[in-house]
Amino acid sequence: MMNRKLRMGMVGGGTDAFIGAIHRLAALMDNQIELVCGCFSVNPEISKESGRQYFLPEDRVYETYQEMFEKETQLPEGERMDFVSIVTPNFVHFAPAMMALDNGFNVVLDKPITFTLDEALKLKDKIEETGLTFALTHTYSGYPAVKQAKQMIAEGRLGKIRKVFVEYPQGWLSSKVEDAGNAQASWRTDPKRSGKAGCMGDIGTHAHHLAEYIMGLKVTEICADLNVLVPNRLLDDDGAAFMRFENGAMGVLMATQIAAGEENAIRIRVYGEKGGIDWEQMEPNTLKVKWVDQPMQVLRVGTSMDTAVAAHNTRTPGGHPEGYLEAFANIYKNFALTVRAKANGEAPTPEMLDFPGVEDGIRGMQFIDTVVSAGYNDEVKWVKFGEEI
Amino acid sequence: MMNRKLRMGMVGGGTDAFIGAIHRLAALMDNQIELVCGCFSVNPEISKESGRQYFLPEDRVYETYQEMFEKETQLPEGERMDFVSIVTPNFVHFAPAMMALDNGFNVVLDKPITFTLDEALKLKDKIEETGLTFALTHTYSGYPAVKQAKQMIAEGRLGKIRKVFVEYPQGWLSSKVEDAGNAQASWRTDPKRSGKAGCMGDIGTHAHHLAEYIMGLKVTEICADLNVLVPNRLLDDDGAAFMRFENGAMGVLMATQIAAGEENAIRIRVYGEKGGIDWEQMEPNTLKVKWVDQPMQVLRVGTSMDTAVAAHNTRTPGGHPEGYLEAFANIYKNFALTVRAKANGEAPTPEMLDFPGVEDGIRGMQFIDTVVSAGYNDEVKWVKFGEEI
Amino acid sequence: MMNRKLRMGMVGGGTDAFIGAIHRLAALMDNQIELVCGCFSVNPEISKESGRQYFLPEDRVYETYQEMFEKETQLPEGERMDFVSIVTPNFVHFAPAMMALDNGFNVVLDKPITFTLDEALKLKDKIEETGLTFALTHTYSGYPAVKQAKQMIAEGRLGKIRKVFVEYPQGWLSSKVEDAGNAQASWRTDPKRSGKAGCMGDIGTHAHHLAEYIMGLKVTEICADLNVLVPNRLLDDDGAAFMRFENGAMGVLMATQIAAGEENAIRIRVYGEKGGIDWEQMEPNTLKVKWVDQPMQVLRVGTSMDTAVAAHNTRTPGGHPEGYLEAFANIYKNFALTVRAKANGEAPTPEMLDFPGVEDGIRGMQFIDTVVSAGYNDEVKWVKFGEEI
Amino acid sequence: MMNRKLRMGMVGGGTDAFIGAIHRLAALMDNQIELVCGCFSVNPEISKESGRQYFLPEDRVYETYQEMFEKETQLPEGERMDFVSIVTPNFVHFAPAMMALDNGFNVVLDKPITFTLDEALKLKDKIEETGLTFALTHTYSGYPAVKQAKQMIAEGRLGKIRKVFVEYPQGWLSSKVEDAGNAQASWRTDPKRSGKAGCMGDIGTHAHHLAEYIMGLKVTEICADLNVLVPNRLLDDDGAAFMRFENGAMGVLMATQIAAGEENAIRIRVYGEKGGIDWEQMEPNTLKVKWVDQPMQVLRVGTSMDTAVAAHNTRTPGGHPEGYLEAFANIYKNFALTVRAKANGEAPTPEMLDFPGVEDGIRGMQFIDTVVSAGYNDEVKWVKFGEEI
Repeated sequence: MMNRKLRMGMVGGGTDAFIGAIHRLAALMDNQIELVCGCFSVNPEISKESGRQYFLPEDRVYETYQEMFEKETQLPEGERMDFVSIVTPNFVHFAPAMMALDNGFNVVLDKPITFTLDEALKLKDKIEETGLTFALTHTYSGYPAVKQAKQMIAEGRLGKIRKVFVEYPQGWLSSKVEDAGNAQASWRTDPKRSGKAGCMGDIGTHAHHLAEYIMGLKVTEICADLNVLVPNRLLDDDGAAFMRFENGAMGVLMATQIAAGEENAIRIRVYGEKGGIDWEQMEPNTLKVKWVDQPMQVLRVGTSMDTAVAAHNTRTPGGHPEGYLEAFANIYKNFALTVRAKANGEAPTPEMLDFPGVEDGIRGMQFIDTVVSAGYNDEVKWVKFGEEI
Repeated sequence: MMNRKLRMGMVGGGTDAFIGAIHRLAALMDNQIELVCGCFSVNPEISKESGRQYFLPEDRVYETYQEMFEKETQLPEGERMDFVSIVTPNFVHFAPAMMALDNGFNVVLDKPITFTLDEALKLKDKIEETGLTFALTHTYSGYPAVKQAKQMIAEGRLGKIRKVFVEYPQGWLSSKVEDAGNAQASWRTDPKRSGKAGCMGDIGTHAHHLAEYIMGLKVTEICADLNVLVPNRLLDDDGAAFMRFENGAMGVLMATQIAAGEENAIRIRVYGEKGGIDWEQMEPNTLKVKWVDQPMQVLRVGTSMDTAVAAHNTRTPGGHPEGYLEAFANIYKNFALTVRAKANGEAPTPEMLDFPGVEDGIRGMQFIDTVVSAGYNDEVKWVKFGEEI
Repeated sequence: MMNRKLRMGMVGGGTDAFIGAIHRLAALMDNQIELVCGCFSVNPEISKESGRQYFLPEDRVYETYQEMFEKETQLPEGERMDFVSIVTPNFVHFAPAMMALDNGFNVVLDKPITFTLDEALKLKDKIEETGLTFALTHTYSGYPAVKQAKQMIAEGRLGKIRKVFVEYPQGWLSSKVEDAGNAQASWRTDPKRSGKAGCMGDIGTHAHHLAEYIMGLKVTEICADLNVLVPNRLLDDDGAAFMRFENGAMGVLMATQIAAGEENAIRIRVYGEKGGIDWEQMEPNTLKVKWVDQPMQVLRVGTSMDTAVAAHNTRTPGGHPEGYLEAFANIYKNFALTVRAKANGEAPTPEMLDFPGVEDGIRGMQFIDTVVSAGYNDEVKWVKFGEEI
Repeated sequence: MMNRKLRMGMVGGGTDAFIGAIHRLAALMDNQIELVCGCFSVNPEISKESGRQYFLPEDRVYETYQEMFEKETQLPEGERMDFVSIVTPNFVHFAPAMMALDNGFNVVLDKPITFTLDEALKLKDKIEETGLTFALTHTYSGYPAVKQAKQMIAEGRLGKIRKVFVEYPQGWLSSKVEDAGNAQASWRTDPKRSGKAGCMGDIGTHAHHLAEYIMGLKVTEICADLNVLVPNRLLDDDGAAFMRFENGAMGVLMATQIAAGEENAIRIRVYGEKGGIDWEQMEPNTLKVKWVDQPMQVLRVGTSMDTAVAAHNTRTPGGHPEGYLEAFANIYKNFALTVRAKANGEAPTPEMLDFPGVEDGIRGMQFIDTVVSAGYNDEVKWVKFGEEI
């Protein structure tokens, strides 16, 4: 019986990084996981100092991820890490993830999954080959209100789904901050580190994932319009797409990082024959449900969400707001429950398995390929999802 | 000196109609206009009964608009109407408007201006030929907060404009109510009475007009996606468009009438280099202004709107909400002020002239032509504004 | 048969006044009333100029209200006014109202009804004696959402009512604007023109009226705390009260005019055993209904309000916001329907009679007396409603 | 140098408890604290099972808190706990807290601090005598937006403070759930376990604390109205108070647990001469700042909050909402930083020391005494804060 906390290692996530801190908060809050080792930076000094601040023994702070996997493998089972969180820029996702799996470690990976679709497909093969557990941190599907919405739609409460609007406006790239020393902006706007898409890869993928997750439907075709609206930027910083879904539903996706003054305003509205749902991430505990034939209802996390899956992913009673970190933590919690169940020879329940995985990562890479194919040129076309033209 | 109320006649607007009642409320509230005559319905009984309920003498209630124009012309100047409001379905706009102008009456016309672009162009010639005053009731640009936003952008407070999102979700056509006796739905979904577009003509034109009005920029190209999402409907009930503007700004327009549970949620967000504005018609007295480098401001009608044009179009102090009827009334008020100024040999001020006119109507017809050309086929294309393909 | 518009005269409401303009807008929009005469100011020049701007003939603009009542009485029935709107400061309410009634004119009176309770009681006797129709413009009970709430409570949908919070924060008196030439502030803070209460008379009475109207319950006892928070002001500019209701329900009322930055934020929340309602005047078309055992519902004017009384007081379909002027107009509309019905020998329906009258005015005066008795001294006490101590 | 995580023990907080889970989440998320031992329930089976679920070794799960303090004291310094979190009902606060201090352990205590004021005063003496660190979990002052508001007021940005409205409506006691097996309701409505006040002790104290914290001002006098609105309840379930502050500012406090349909809607509005702030806990990342002479500003956590103290208590960038658990965690984080600084012989910074302590607890007990004295009788009076009558 695995009757202990899971042991986490990290690649990336030094004291100078943003998303690594989020991963630690999310991993630790539920008392299911402890941080035991890491290679926190390509800069060994930063890595060491980070290890100190995270209260790790010096011999569990490594200079390279290769060293980490090698040395951790040699530790006795009762000490070595169970899984690694990889929180590096996009172009350093594939190699450490493959090596982790090859060495028998489960993996949590920040999105987008890899630099190219091809890498993602290889990763999928490796995951299947090893039987290890893999999570991709598409945070927004971790919110209980989102899970409530997905379940309501799956149960047919809104009738046949016809339409989705998913939007993701941000404003932080509305000037050329990548030239002013913003490290986040620097790699995200650089094709060599970010990949073939900018805004669409960074946040468009979140919007696409959220839509498919909530609707329970796949996009089949996309017509897009990608723009560079801040002069001399190399990758798209703004875009929109028309989307066709497998059941005939239509969608509009907007993602932009030049909406000056916006924070992180991802929102989704889905309409069926009987009604619609409306969820805004910046007020995440509220799910508006609009009906053709009765007043709008305001469902609230912890109070009036009526699905088991929402309850499973909620920590506080109604009116005690949960937020982004708790949504993030739901991915870690369910990942940990799954790893523990498998370690104990039990089948993980559907609720445990409800976290994004490699298939979601592959669809994300295909989304990037498709919008880029469909949207960077004057000859706009409907492009079949996953096909480049 | 014209020192009296303007005298209004009506074509349409019987007791069984929707928009006619709105026109009367809007026209009368400011004590600038009185209703003196009308031909309120093609059904003479309804027309007569309507006249009674509007407290008109029997001899000023006519059976046809032709009769009305003829008889009113014969009345002495001190009695006959000054202008006519035409509030009939789209296919009965052009003929009465032309006849009114030919008989020397100023005209207020519900939108869209005509059934075809060609009619709209002829109407423009007639207006120029006669020198009469013409207003088109694109209501949403009548709101003081919208005028404040337009003025702020014109003054460059947001910097160069880069992006607009304009959306107009409604839900009232989410089932096939035109088959269940809904008169509004019946003519609006019928190509013979509504024209070549459904949703895009009915509400997409409002969204397009609002965007161009606020931004002070013209659309130059459109790529669209129009859909029929309720089976067996003859005209689009849903759609979206990518838009390019003359200054290089990009836009996304969404309009749908099948968003089950939505009321009349037209909203516009415009972003420039320095910040953005956000206005929602269903909370019309609030204008959110978001900034790159300072907290969001919430401008309020009657309190913190700082432009003369907003003040000119406001009746109440802050916190005493104005609404749709007051926005509508602003069109009538400014129209009346313009007619009176011209009657008195004075030049109308820019504030008086700030109501939609024939040019807006023509752009609306061109918008319909363009989105229909760009959006009803699988071979999506960028279409130059006003060009059919 | 009275088959014509009602003819309105005005006392007060010159071009330099605030509330008079509101009354005209409200009276005129529904095409039920026309303005025929007035004595618009104590300053005859302002009165004359006002008459010109309101397009009245010179001989219907009077120098004094005494002259107006006298001369109008002498006009033939087909010309003379039917009712008078009195929109002067509080201390000029009683005399013109009495004289109007004595001369056979119906009366609309701005609130608070009179300067003293004694005057209000005399007015009541006069109204009963003459059988004329009298309306008091407590605007906030004119909103359709408020009427919906009242009806829902009357039907017992919330169960037994236990609690009310009614609040009315304004900020316009947060500095001593009465010393800086603000005419509104000048008389409202002057005991000689406003009466024995400032804030509590001006807006506390609105809050009290709204609570009793919605709850359908009378206040029986009050314990209050009135304050002068801007130094050297002569009347209360801030206050609060605990209230006991006839059924045992408890209430808290807050009214302040020194809440810096607030506009006109009257809000009421009422809770019963099964749920509660929440209405905010600055978003007046929304009524939140909260339930113990199901999700909150958002009822919307024109869409999901399900009572006949809400429909009777609504002009536009859902999503076309109505506002303060329409609420005000509901008082005038129902007053006019009542006057016409009585003129035609018909019994006014309950919906026609649903406007505030002399009893509401008397309760307002009693409220002022009670809070002043209970709240201006250090020896706070529960005071029986209507009793001075 | 204490270069390790702080070691936490718990009294209470078994798997069947509510607030204990919150404490653990809050304590653990920042990677500053680890749970090492506990006595989680008076029921030894629950305590043991809880220990297993929290992954503790069996020998660190105790049957009584007395045993825990005794045995932990005997452990070597490198193993034994550093502090204890006491999360039991009110009547089991004082004894374990005193014993913990006597045994040299720092203490985190849930509010209200003790059962009686006398106990609280004794606790204060003990804390001063031992020099240990003590935190009281008044969660709501842990929010970064609250700290921003406090700092803005301290800097005089709103001018002299005149008025506060603080309200705390809940609905969970709107029926007699204590008779239906609700354990939370059972002890909170029982004078023997909760103390002399119900609603005012449970949530009124939060409201009072929040007001004094944000305003930086002490209440000097209170006039209150406490009610039992659900029949046969033994303690107040509803109440309100007028409050006078040391600088002459006035306040209104409302707290109720019978507002059917409400969740946990604590809200505070403070007004000064120049403007006001408005904060609602259920949307905690937004601070509205209203001004006399400029548009309302909406300050946002992570984006436009401009104080160092807000930044110190924020984990995520703007638009990634933080919530209740993060506010709670701020108390633990600052407590841990203080304990560590003191262990290392350093003076804690003011930011570290910014968590509620014994003085806040004493004021809470005095608040309860005062409102109960002032509000349970018909002879309402102004009672000096801390005085019983």
